[in-house]
Amino acid sequence: MNKNKPLTKLSTLGEFGLIRHLTKNIKLKNASSLKGVGDDAAVLDYRDKRVLVSTDMLIEGVHFDLAYVPLKHLGYKAVSTNASDIYAMNGTPRQITLSIAMSNRFSLEAVDELYEGIYLACDHYGIDLVGGDTTSSRTGLCLSVTVIGEADEADIVYRDTARENDLICVSGNLGAAYMGLQLLEREKAVFNTDPNVQPDLSGYEYILERQLKPEARGDIVRILRDKKIKPTAMMDISDGLSSEVLHICHDSGLGCRIYEDKIPIDYQTFRMAEELNMNATVCALSGGEDYELLFTVPLADYDKLLTIEEISIIGHTCPPGEGHSLVTRDGNTFELKAQGWVNFNETND
Amino acid sequence: MNKNKPLTKLSTLGEFGLIRHLTKNIKLKNASSLKGVGDDAAVLDYRDKRVLVSTDMLIEGVHFDLAYVPLKHLGYKAVSTNASDIYAMNGTPRQITLSIAMSNRFSLEAVDELYEGIYLACDHYGIDLVGGDTTSSRTGLCLSVTVIGEADEADIVYRDTARENDLICVSGNLGAAYMGLQLLEREKAVFNTDPNVQPDLSGYEYILERQLKPEARGDIVRILRDKKIKPTAMMDISDGLSSEVLHICHDSGLGCRIYEDKIPIDYQTFRMAEELNMNATVCALSGGEDYELLFTVPLADYDKLLTIEEISIIGHTCPPGEGHSLVTRDGNTFELKAQGWVNFNETND
Repeated sequence: MNKNKPLTKLSTLGEFGLIRHLTKNIKLKNASSLKGVGDDAAVLDYRDKRVLVSTDMLIEGVHFDLAYVPLKHLGYKAVSTNASDIYAMNGTPRQITLSIAMSNRFSLEAVDELYEGIYLACDHYGIDLVGGDTTSSRTGLCLSVTVIGEADEADIVYRDTARENDLICVSGNLGAAYMGLQLLEREKAVFNTDPNVQPDLSGYEYILERQLKPEARGDIVRILRDKKIKPTAMMDISDGLSSEVLHICHDSGLGCRIYEDKIPIDYQTFRMAEELNMNATVCALSGGEDYELLFTVPLADYDKLLTIEEISIIGHTCPPGEGHSLVTRDGNTFELKAQGWVNFNETND
Repeated sequence: MNKNKPLTKLSTLGEFGLIRHLTKNIKLKNASSLKGVGDDAAVLDYRDKRVLVSTDMLIEGVHFDLAYVPLKHLGYKAVSTNASDIYAMNGTPRQITLSIAMSNRFSLEAVDELYEGIYLACDHYGIDLVGGDTTSSRTGLCLSVTVIGEADEADIVYRDTARENDLICVSGNLGAAYMGLQLLEREKAVFNTDPNVQPDLSGYEYILERQLKPEARGDIVRILRDKKIKPTAMMDISDGLSSEVLHICHDSGLGCRIYEDKIPIDYQTFRMAEELNMNATVCALSGGEDYELLFTVPLADYDKLLTIEEISIIGHTCPPGEGHSLVTRDGNTFELKAQGWVNFNETND
């Protein structure tokens, strides 16, 4: 944004003017998008495919802090976290609808930045923005995205279909987004104490990007398809590894063993955890927003899995009687417990 | 709610506990709902049909005032206003996803009331709740509903397909929801001045219900289908008649003539307007939230239309050069102007 140019008040456009401004350059990319923005509803064509639908809401002060989250990144993240839910069903995201509530403290230029990120992510994932709602809010910014995707019925992978002695796998690495958040929070606190201190973020670019601009792992879905590996169960990791492993195990009626030394953690995550006196494994188990894929695969696919660099085998399922355990580096066994994000705690009223 | 029983804090359930509590009684009704709540995405089957998608966001303090809107009504309204968008495409609503952000000032009992209204509306319209997101907010209540519906491709009615010399029709009557809102606002102001004064709402039950518990006009869609009348263009009236008439005319590249004496207005709407020194026609033209259907029909269907009690012919389209005019009771002609709701005005930051 050019700081010298006066900013445009949203009130000068009106609701319909704003919608026209924000949607005028949309070009629909998918054959399934028959009619996008501009009528009472979008019209989609999903003839031979099953339709996948997921939705997420992002609230200022709960899910993001505009003190350090650039609006463009926020827009990008709102789309990629939703795309992640469709990939987690082994599907392909095709359309989103986007509802936004914002107060008049946002200028048109600020809203344009947000949409720049949204359209960038839509292009990256091949998604059409086909509808939405734009309204005012009394206080903060509120985003709600609904994503619609497709899959052949036989390809869909649920959470409750893991089997005994399946391999438990994750893509990429874990805990990085959470460490990125901790770093941003630390630098914000420093800035609040002394606004003259410049934030020190160098050497931590990767974990910052994992927090601010996470990517949905469509590449992993495609690699698995190419290698003819069909997961028996899958979900994306938004609330932390342990919470999601327990989800799949509970829904599938299984126990599990997870090995601490197999959990993939990036060097920057380790280093940040050390600097903050935290345990990197705990961050991987309980820190959220990684948007990596967690999935189970039959033991027979073991050799094929080894050829995929971006996938780690972190444990296996077992009969339900054997419980849910974490085997630590030193060989001790602990019960795996869900922590994840607890949104409804006592402090955030 | 039993006022003597202590209320349950949301924090005692946690996010997953709350979702389980709120969704445990869902029984999917539609053949197209293959998998509802409980995975990364819902799975739908729309084989031979086109998929219709629309979304709406409701923000406390902007779209509703909990000082006089019962939570159960709010839940009902959130569903019916979305269903209305699918009917306005000449389709049938089948599924919704629902995202809710709320602060800890809401008890579990309050959330249950909201969901009671949501499920009541889902039953009324034959809709399945198939997914959503539940989160906390720092301040007010925020609801976002995405509705998914179906139609045969040949049945879909858009906004931009009206033709010259079509009849312009509306269902039901207009301005009632706006008058209901004015009454509620008046009684709230009285209450704020003197909390001992009981609100005086008697004789105005109908306009209150139009504001608090609007119905989507699926019945009109079915009647038109039974009578073999296919509208050439259609939309629902959420922002006031004039704004919506201009939408259809602009999108279809047409002019129009609307006759004031043909605009259907209920007796209670007239009476309330008189009491408040307002013009009932202006309320019908510019007051929002009626959720009646506005549609255009070929002149050839005139006789068939006359047999339908709930439909009024209020004017006709004309060549674009003839402009958009309102012919008043006394025979004067004015230019029709959009007013509707202006959300982004200067006052609501």
